Amino acid sequence: MEDTGHYLQRMRARAPLVQNITNNVAMNMMANVQIAAGASPAMADAAEEVVEFTALADALTVNIGTADSLKAMSMRLAGAAMNGHGRPWVFDPVGVGATQFRNDLCRDLLALCPTVVRGNASEILTLAGRGKGARGVDAVDSVASAEAAARELAGRTGHIVVATGPVDYVTDGTRALWVANGDPMMAKITVSGCSLNGVIAAFLVEQPPLEATAAALAYYGLAGERAAAVCAGPGTFQPAFLDALYALTPEDVTQGARIEAA
Amino acid sequence: MEDTGHYLQRMRARAPLVQNITNNVAMNMMANVQIAAGASPAMADAAEEVVEFTALADALTVNIGTADSLKAMSMRLAGAAMNGHGRPWVFDPVGVGATQFRNDLCRDLLALCPTVVRGNASEILTLAGRGKGARGVDAVDSVASAEAAARELAGRTGHIVVATGPVDYVTDGTRALWVANGDPMMAKITVSGCSLNGVIAAFLVEQPPLEATAAALAYYGLAGERAAAVCAGPGTFQPAFLDALYALTPEDVTQGARIEAA
Amino acid sequence: MEDTGHYLQRMRARAPLVQNITNNVAMNMMANVQIAAGASPAMADAAEEVVEFTALADALTVNIGTADSLKAMSMRLAGAAMNGHGRPWVFDPVGVGATQFRNDLCRDLLALCPTVVRGNASEILTLAGRGKGARGVDAVDSVASAEAAARELAGRTGHIVVATGPVDYVTDGTRALWVANGDPMMAKITVSGCSLNGVIAAFLVEQPPLEATAAALAYYGLAGERAAAVCAGPGTFQPAFLDALYALTPEDVTQGARIEAA
Repeated sequence: MEDTGHYLQRMRARAPLVQNITNNVAMNMMANVQIAAGASPAMADAAEEVVEFTALADALTVNIGTADSLKAMSMRLAGAAMNGHGRPWVFDPVGVGATQFRNDLCRDLLALCPTVVRGNASEILTLAGRGKGARGVDAVDSVASAEAAARELAGRTGHIVVATGPVDYVTDGTRALWVANGDPMMAKITVSGCSLNGVIAAFLVEQPPLEATAAALAYYGLAGERAAAVCAGPGTFQPAFLDALYALTPEDVTQGARIEAA
Repeated sequence: MEDTGHYLQRMRARAPLVQNITNNVAMNMMANVQIAAGASPAMADAAEEVVEFTALADALTVNIGTADSLKAMSMRLAGAAMNGHGRPWVFDPVGVGATQFRNDLCRDLLALCPTVVRGNASEILTLAGRGKGARGVDAVDSVASAEAAARELAGRTGHIVVATGPVDYVTDGTRALWVANGDPMMAKITVSGCSLNGVIAAFLVEQPPLEATAAALAYYGLAGERAAAVCAGPGTFQPAFLDALYALTPEDVTQGARIEAA
Repeated sequence: MEDTGHYLQRMRARAPLVQNITNNVAMNMMANVQIAAGASPAMADAAEEVVEFTALADALTVNIGTADSLKAMSMRLAGAAMNGHGRPWVFDPVGVGATQFRNDLCRDLLALCPTVVRGNASEILTLAGRGKGARGVDAVDSVASAEAAARELAGRTGHIVVATGPVDYVTDGTRALWVANGDPMMAKITVSGCSLNGVIAAFLVEQPPLEATAAALAYYGLAGERAAAVCAGPGTFQPAFLDALYALTPEDVTQGARIEAA
């Protein structure tokens, strides 16, 4: 693929408006992450306006973390509307397998053809019908153990599937990439996965989805590495992470990205 | 007007209880901002209790950022109740123009006579019926281009109207003030505008509204200047901003305020 | 009681999954606090799935801060379900006394037998039927003035009752402990009380509730002391507090805990 930094550069030049229907834990951090990266977030998520709002959005994220029936309706409507506009959206099946409500909602959202499905290894295994059950919202499986399921799910649905973990795995069902950027400290704060969705969505706008997703993962992980090097714990990690997302240049990303064909 | 710091001093002496019906992105930061400034926030926003709760509140803020029909009902009820108590409230028409739902809600809230309407230039232009359309929740117009609309809207409705941006414009329809405090870094974090509403509301309690609003804007902007001088990016800006809101003295505000008659 | 640090050590060894039905202000900070402490938070709070989700949870917290009728239903259902599982849950009656809606919900939740009730002095007095009325969500009474009410409430209901303040008071109706750890800066940020609930819940898992609660209070207060010693204000306090929760060892807690029989 092209120099990784080019994907960041083009995203920043566009400063895409990303609509986010996400969980209430993630909203603030997710918005700050997107602004720091160079995108423009909007958290409009009410069923009353969500379809109309998609007309303004360059991309969408959908995250079921704290969904109820009303938010679930917003998600289905907005995902379908983005398909109608021919614009990308990212789906995060948080905690799928934990309850029937989550399973039913994820089945519908998957059927609505998101551009990218991103989850931890356990969530991807569960979506692919191979899960052994999750433990709440945390992964209990390794990314390696989810690679075949991710590839099969991507091949069957036509979506990009991403399993994130110490090394991320991205596949379109035919090709696959590993992205090795990141730091264990990223798992010591909440919503680092949720916030990533917003960065992926911003990178997807008018860029090839497999490569754009891998570039977003590398950029995000690199910011995590930088922040971990200067923080004193998970509390000071968070501001340092936002600073790093803001400060990283396309050249930094090209030099620091660790992406390999899988 | 009087020394700007006096408005801060009296607000802190009263430590007013401010009720906030705000968006889910802003709730945490907004509460922290109000505590750091010296007020006492309460985020009671359910239609089930919002009217009864206004009996305890010295001031109210209403922000439509992530409103749905139920929250919209809370907003209408609480605004009307504050009028009944003769106590001030601040209305923030986030993203008006983006959807019909927002437009309808803003029409009602404007008709309920908020003490202060605060928005970015695009939102004020749209409220005044002169908007060319927003881009989601971000301004695409300059404050200067919104001054006539703000003055006309204030004159017609009797509210204080504030258009915030690099230089803020505050008017009651007859008189007008510019407030030049602030730093571009404030636009690199989410909800800095939303959180400002809570500070304005606290300053409004038993103080003349035009001057109190300008003093709140100067104080808030000055804290942004201080934080920008010591931060390394938008992540470290946020804690530094709260520290500055907490540390600024009335004397600092009197010395640092840049308020001019417009 | 045993060395205080042992309670932290065992909690971390278990890394319990704590389900939280909390207010929208607290969600993010509360999740970060629990991760930093060593627990695994899940914020599943929709009535559609809350009972099914309790099957996965080792402990639960319920906080009425921004409850509406739907969230109130989730709280009643989840509390009852945890009783069915024989697993601990913590109830925080935020702002009880402020509105009839809060009073009605608190009456029900108290009747559902939470393991621990934690509030500020005014909330505990109100729950015990001795309140003189609150001022929104902030305490207007001293912990000392609430001790008799706490002891009586605990004796009558069989719950552990905690009144937090400069010195915390913990009682099961027969025995009582004072915990003197903490720093006034903890009151200068929002949701420090709400976030504490999640730490208490994590400590309660398979540990004796009176001692586990006191140990959680000491650990949490000690982290506040450490953070206050290095911060420059309430903004920088928050990241330093999370760092301290993460860094404190069982030995630190044993040495620093200030727990006394009352």
